[in-house]
Amino acid sequence: MRLGPGDDAAILRLGDRAECVVTVDMLNDGIDFELGRVDPRRIGRKALAVNLSDLAAMAARPLAIVVAVVLPKRGGRELAWQLFEGMLPLAERYQVAMAGGDTNSWDGPLAICITAIGEVTGHGPLLRSGARPGDRILVTGAFGGSLLNHHLDFEPRVQEALLLNADYSLHAGIDVSDGLARDLAHICEESRTGAVVDIDRVPIAPAAYQMQDERTPREHALCDGEDFELVLAVPPEVARDLIASQPIGVPLTDIGEFTAELGLRQRSSTGLITALARNGFEHNF
Amino acid sequence: MRLGPGDDAAILRLGDRAECVVTVDMLNDGIDFELGRVDPRRIGRKALAVNLSDLAAMAARPLAIVVAVVLPKRGGRELAWQLFEGMLPLAERYQVAMAGGDTNSWDGPLAICITAIGEVTGHGPLLRSGARPGDRILVTGAFGGSLLNHHLDFEPRVQEALLLNADYSLHAGIDVSDGLARDLAHICEESRTGAVVDIDRVPIAPAAYQMQDERTPREHALCDGEDFELVLAVPPEVARDLIASQPIGVPLTDIGEFTAELGLRQRSSTGLITALARNGFEHNF
Repeated sequence: MRLGPGDDAAILRLGDRAECVVTVDMLNDGIDFELGRVDPRRIGRKALAVNLSDLAAMAARPLAIVVAVVLPKRGGRELAWQLFEGMLPLAERYQVAMAGGDTNSWDGPLAICITAIGEVTGHGPLLRSGARPGDRILVTGAFGGSLLNHHLDFEPRVQEALLLNADYSLHAGIDVSDGLARDLAHICEESRTGAVVDIDRVPIAPAAYQMQDERTPREHALCDGEDFELVLAVPPEVARDLIASQPIGVPLTDIGEFTAELGLRQRSSTGLITALARNGFEHNF
Repeated sequence: MRLGPGDDAAILRLGDRAECVVTVDMLNDGIDFELGRVDPRRIGRKALAVNLSDLAAMAARPLAIVVAVVLPKRGGRELAWQLFEGMLPLAERYQVAMAGGDTNSWDGPLAICITAIGEVTGHGPLLRSGARPGDRILVTGAFGGSLLNHHLDFEPRVQEALLLNADYSLHAGIDVSDGLARDLAHICEESRTGAVVDIDRVPIAPAAYQMQDERTPREHALCDGEDFELVLAVPPEVARDLIASQPIGVPLTDIGEFTAELGLRQRSSTGLITALARNGFEHNF
């Protein structure tokens, strides 16, 4: 094993050269989705997409998945088919082989577990631990309000990660499942750096404005999670090139920098630097 | 993908040479075990052991596992630890890295899903599809009554499979999870052969005699399942050598032969050949 628990996926060495990237995610009824309130095809799609997103976070090319599922007894057969139907277009788009599975049924609720296997590409696997002070924080897409729809329909950033990792020297990466601030903190911890976020530059998704609660759109963008966008640590000169050329279909935004000083901080448009909580709330001191 | 669904595990090709064997099994409370009636350590152990048995059936060397689990909310933390404790000795014995995982909790019952990854060894992967007419049917160990204890405490035949595949030319293999007759039928189907079982030679486990129901011990041996012994298709001269030399610690028994004529049959000690049902019952015609 070259890389064990703690990153988005594990890396195994096979034979002399080949490296195999492995990740697993289990989705559960009532926690990750509500069966009966959503088309099961979207659940199947999400179960695959979250795994592909983990591979994208490592800039690994997806090769195959194995799927284990436990179905409620009532309607289980039809449900299994719908889950599969939901996975199929995504599997085809990314040329992922459905290599095997295990189908069970019980009196309990639906649980679906996918393990995805990929191969290392380009400049090698993108780890959480490679960020260096001075690196820019680049993100794909926009953040917040994923709960309204995006968490079921998001496009894993597979192609974007492969393209970036083939043509550019990136230092670290993660996909945002826990929330932008939290996942940025994960890179910082593994890289033993801190980060300063230029708070006004954080791209806020339209859905973040549609959330009906006490949080601001920006707070949603920082804390909601399940955006499944990439957060990258990129050397400054490479970041400048990327921001200028925008070589992938999805917008890349520079939202700050990694620092030698530990901890998450935010910089306002006036230049004021304050602490940034991992849960994304902007505390006023 | 070199081999997809339908065998004990899938085989993926990575890079130029390396081949990666992948299998997944999910165990569910109330189906595969009864939480509350069994030490959770034995559940964790079984969840790993069934996957190792699938790799053994392919004569693949285990490398790593990823574990996904959904825990009941009450006592979930302690349960997770106990499951892990149960896996650990087996993982250490077979030098399997615990490469990653996904831990969830809900109001539903325990489900545990392990994906195991191995590498091809010796004469290459042992498939279900390689049996040829004239091959002998060799089995490890004894069969029946697994439900009494063995299904939780069995030793996956990893070392035995690796040793046999390194030193001998085997044609096909499977591990017995569905039952000796059923799993033998799986080899036959994939190999487009039939098989004749010398019914008096089938090794019957002591536990098969302790089952308190209407079935005979022999019927238990043929149909119970979860024995997790190996069934192998072996060329006659190799089989003779193996039976004479008994090179693995576990007894190898020759229980019959693969045939060009399709279907499962049994031969009695008097030489009478009759049909053998897949569910293992000895029908009298």
